[in-house]
Amino acid sequence: MAGVDSGVRFSAPKLRSWTEAIFQKVGVSGEDAVLLTDSLIEANLRGVDTHGITRMLCVYVKRMQVGVVNPKTQLQVVREHASTALIHCKNGIGQVASNVAMRMAIEKAKKTGVAFVATTHSNHYGAAAYWAMMALDHGMIGLSSTNAPAVVAPTGGRTPMLGTNPFAVAIPAGQEQPMVLDLATTVVARGRILLHAKQDKPLEPGWAFDELGRPTVDPHAAVKGLLAPIGGYKGYGIALAIDLLCGVMTGSNYGTHFPGFLADNMTEPTDVGSIFAALNVESFMDAPEFKAGMDKAIREIKTSVKADGVKRIYIPGEIEFETKAERLKNGIPIPEAVVKDFVALGNELGVPLPTA
Amino acid sequence: MAGVDSGVRFSAPKLRSWTEAIFQKVGVSGEDAVLLTDSLIEANLRGVDTHGITRMLCVYVKRMQVGVVNPKTQLQVVREHASTALIHCKNGIGQVASNVAMRMAIEKAKKTGVAFVATTHSNHYGAAAYWAMMALDHGMIGLSSTNAPAVVAPTGGRTPMLGTNPFAVAIPAGQEQPMVLDLATTVVARGRILLHAKQDKPLEPGWAFDELGRPTVDPHAAVKGLLAPIGGYKGYGIALAIDLLCGVMTGSNYGTHFPGFLADNMTEPTDVGSIFAALNVESFMDAPEFKAGMDKAIREIKTSVKADGVKRIYIPGEIEFETKAERLKNGIPIPEAVVKDFVALGNELGVPLPTA
Repeated sequence: MAGVDSGVRFSAPKLRSWTEAIFQKVGVSGEDAVLLTDSLIEANLRGVDTHGITRMLCVYVKRMQVGVVNPKTQLQVVREHASTALIHCKNGIGQVASNVAMRMAIEKAKKTGVAFVATTHSNHYGAAAYWAMMALDHGMIGLSSTNAPAVVAPTGGRTPMLGTNPFAVAIPAGQEQPMVLDLATTVVARGRILLHAKQDKPLEPGWAFDELGRPTVDPHAAVKGLLAPIGGYKGYGIALAIDLLCGVMTGSNYGTHFPGFLADNMTEPTDVGSIFAALNVESFMDAPEFKAGMDKAIREIKTSVKADGVKRIYIPGEIEFETKAERLKNGIPIPEAVVKDFVALGNELGVPLPTA
Repeated sequence: MAGVDSGVRFSAPKLRSWTEAIFQKVGVSGEDAVLLTDSLIEANLRGVDTHGITRMLCVYVKRMQVGVVNPKTQLQVVREHASTALIHCKNGIGQVASNVAMRMAIEKAKKTGVAFVATTHSNHYGAAAYWAMMALDHGMIGLSSTNAPAVVAPTGGRTPMLGTNPFAVAIPAGQEQPMVLDLATTVVARGRILLHAKQDKPLEPGWAFDELGRPTVDPHAAVKGLLAPIGGYKGYGIALAIDLLCGVMTGSNYGTHFPGFLADNMTEPTDVGSIFAALNVESFMDAPEFKAGMDKAIREIKTSVKADGVKRIYIPGEIEFETKAERLKNGIPIPEAVVKDFVALGNELGVPLPTA
């Protein structure tokens, strides 16, 4: 569960303006600050607080301050074909590079039907869904993925060799909300293991391994151990394919060469690789027909018979759309401890956090 | 486990010639029979007997004999752009359509960098890996996926609404074997549940649900129930995304509208939708550099520290490459019961099964 549900509620516009000002104070251009902030605030609105300012703001700022990320993003298209491009990000802001990459993919897909753009020497890009969803406004299907620091061992191994390597797919619909899938290739996030350890609560079977690579339900052993990929060797394979595409194919870091990209790495450039694709629905079907088909398929799933004790069947992304509507109305909850950090950050940079 | 390891060993060339002759007897052209046979024999060689002649031959033949599949495949490209195409298969042979689709994707990707081709009104296409692997000879990354009859409920549901919806990714390497990932989006195949039921052996947690949608380890309850998707709601989302792309976007059947495509359906056209993509590595990196990078990454995984009691760490597809080498030498094992079926089929069609 990536969201928080308690804390002080701040209106999204207030947090947005303040966050934009903060980023500008550490050297990000006005235009880039708007973009970077939007990707984070959107994650908060969707309830994905792990990828919102809640967890990212202080880390991103610190990484720019110590010079591990260059706040002045200079992009260079190093290879380009009708339906592909490779963008060198020169250790700039991941979101700035991702925005250009996904826009290029969409523009190319308008002409050729599908496009695939990769970024190299980039940084953490926030939530994968944000980039995939950019395709929706163009009636296209969007896809994005990125590699990440190693926390998963290959099946049979006990050394972390692969990241959680998340990917997102966004498919537009008509009157129904689009389907937006955004998932890490591990069964649970590391945060969930840490929470269980804090509460001395056993894990569910299949979540983690100990440091010798043996399955464990002991949260303390798991903290020192490894996250389990979804579907065992299947998730290992998916995470590996993503690392090979994002890391090896783009000339970026991968596997054990990938240093941390958040608070765990304040010393060296991360060199993340990410991928972005857009698929034009109209290459296969007229838009109205596709939208009607999507609505029908979505409704069939939502109205299918529920399991015992289940209130509702959700489409991927549906909870996030509802959370966004609620948070636009009631504000984004920021936990007390994070509010304190924000107050300190605002004071340090001369941009006081507005009152809630 | 998709393979069989006991039975009568037949040489691949003998089985190949015989299978080609069998298909021609039920109306398949010589050229199409060669292609269809190769996709099946290749699955047998790779140890994926569930997708080889072992399980497919009698079913495919029967479906052509009763007229549920048209053995004379007539394809029509109904939409085409620089990097995409939609091919209407008019209920012909899935493999014939898939071969044209993947070849188109490769040719287009040579020009534009990436291509995505879909088939509609098609049939069972065998193993997904076969199509993804076609890209390897061109130094490209291949991807394929297909939808399938519903055996999985959405998270919280208890009606089968989605198929096992497999997908395959093939990534070329240099001196190492390519990485070939081919997986269904369920934790285990239905065959594994049936085997446990036969042996009265409890399932592992997380494999299946009973008919009320409750998790179960009772194999008999699971037989009447549902397969669990990998990673719970994550696998549900992946299976749904594949169904929307393969089914809805191509105008093919999907979800509960998808009738069986094997022995379970001898009455109506299946109307499968499948997707094929090729990505030209050289759009991102020179081939020699990419191959060296792949070899390095693969060796790092293979030589990483093993978990307690583990002999070897495998790259996806590695076991299949080794099985192929072994079976090319020692022959393909066909279980006794299947040999009997083959003898009967050969006699019926006037093409006696050769001796082993």
